[in-house]
Amino acid sequence: MAGFVERLRDAIARNNSCVCVGLDVDAARLPASVRRERDPLVAFNRAIIDATIDLVCAYKPNLAFYERLGIEGLVALQKTVEHVAGRVPVIGDAKRGDIGHASAAYARALFDVFGFDAATVSPYLGHDSVSPFLEYKEKGVFVLCKTSNAGSGDFQDLQVGGEPLYEVVARRVVEWNANGNCGLVVGATYPEHLRRVREIAPDLPFLIPGVGAQAGELEATVRYGMPLPVINSSRQIIFASSGEDFAQAARAATDKLRQSIIQIRPAGSQETVCR
Amino acid sequence: MAGFVERLRDAIARNNSCVCVGLDVDAARLPASVRRERDPLVAFNRAIIDATIDLVCAYKPNLAFYERLGIEGLVALQKTVEHVAGRVPVIGDAKRGDIGHASAAYARALFDVFGFDAATVSPYLGHDSVSPFLEYKEKGVFVLCKTSNAGSGDFQDLQVGGEPLYEVVARRVVEWNANGNCGLVVGATYPEHLRRVREIAPDLPFLIPGVGAQAGELEATVRYGMPLPVINSSRQIIFASSGEDFAQAARAATDKLRQSIIQIRPAGSQETVCR
Repeated sequence: MAGFVERLRDAIARNNSCVCVGLDVDAARLPASVRRERDPLVAFNRAIIDATIDLVCAYKPNLAFYERLGIEGLVALQKTVEHVAGRVPVIGDAKRGDIGHASAAYARALFDVFGFDAATVSPYLGHDSVSPFLEYKEKGVFVLCKTSNAGSGDFQDLQVGGEPLYEVVARRVVEWNANGNCGLVVGATYPEHLRRVREIAPDLPFLIPGVGAQAGELEATVRYGMPLPVINSSRQIIFASSGEDFAQAARAATDKLRQSIIQIRPAGSQETVCR
Repeated sequence: MAGFVERLRDAIARNNSCVCVGLDVDAARLPASVRRERDPLVAFNRAIIDATIDLVCAYKPNLAFYERLGIEGLVALQKTVEHVAGRVPVIGDAKRGDIGHASAAYARALFDVFGFDAATVSPYLGHDSVSPFLEYKEKGVFVLCKTSNAGSGDFQDLQVGGEPLYEVVARRVVEWNANGNCGLVVGATYPEHLRRVREIAPDLPFLIPGVGAQAGELEATVRYGMPLPVINSSRQIIFASSGEDFAQAARAATDKLRQSIIQIRPAGSQETVCR
């Protein structure tokens, strides 16, 4: 089996897309026809996937929205991953991080039980909390670096020996990349931070949430996300329409973002992966 | 309903115990008789709980070990929390942390769906990632501060403006405690760090994992954990025997730790909660 980064590159090239669709389900926002299905969450996700799979490089369910729904939600999550069936990578956005044997249990849950191709993890507990994930050589491990939320500066921006903590994290993750399966989570909401992280980690895939409506932000996101930007959009795609045309609307929203990224193409982008 | 800290104090006083039993299940280590039960994980946990509930102040299942077992594990986790039935607090050791609405979904999952009395959360994403948990005023929120693992120093010990990051985290959590429901996770493996965190946060409950065989460590743990130490032991209790006497062995191991803590009693401990 090819490694995660290779599978990601393949999907980016095949679909000419750096768009990752965030499958962040919300039972309260399902269209009426979907609610009548036997398994509404799965029906919704399957429809979104079927409508977009030739336009994306990855899907990213955030586990929070499934855990909120209890066992039923987690069964739906499993069925959702199964439905993608390896056609593009699926990133389990779990932000896990624990000490050794507990971290190994989380890695097993995410990679073996749920079958994700990659997962997001938190760096706070240090290298030995991330290494059980890294040992899955064919799986991707996106370490939280600079997150997209307003409060991300509370600790991530603190100065540590002349540079902010998120830069220290980025440097360490570059060192941890012996198996070539590391990535970083860097929010689109902080383009300048994104630029600095790209300088530190020139080759790592970046999972970039928080793309807004502003073209400026998207331009910086594409520029500094290169050569491996995985640009996530969740609610703007999956809830693009609340009506019966939700799947077509999701496809249109996905393609709009995809085209916007293609049009930004930084200089020399013919040589980059996301053409 | 009384707040979490009050319920915790009640359990400590009632059972004269600062012991928290970590229900970190391992399907490979169940005794033969338990394996023959219809629902082995639940049968094991119920037996441990029934054998120890008058000797503990809390239980702490780490979600990693249940997620590793997939849906079956998560159903067992729900049944385990139900079996405690509010007799002592149950802390969901989840170490979650995400941006706003995802963090709110995690809080809902842990507090409303699984019914935990408290949860562990990671600080890396900042205040707005923790606040959805804090808004549950009757629930406890233990923020990771200085964890017990060897790699905890990678980031937690980095100097930030003259003090290590974990101290900065402790100070911030003291500020976040408007609802009186904050606690800190501080490993018993770093007694000096524990002492410093106790200076910064004199009143907060500390969830203290990593108690080893060394009396010296336990002494510092009790001293600096006061006035609200929640001293966790997992495998040394629940796997104290691999035979059919596992529940009695767990009871004996729990009481041994409980008595050791009582005997350490720092000066003036009559006035402290853990007598």
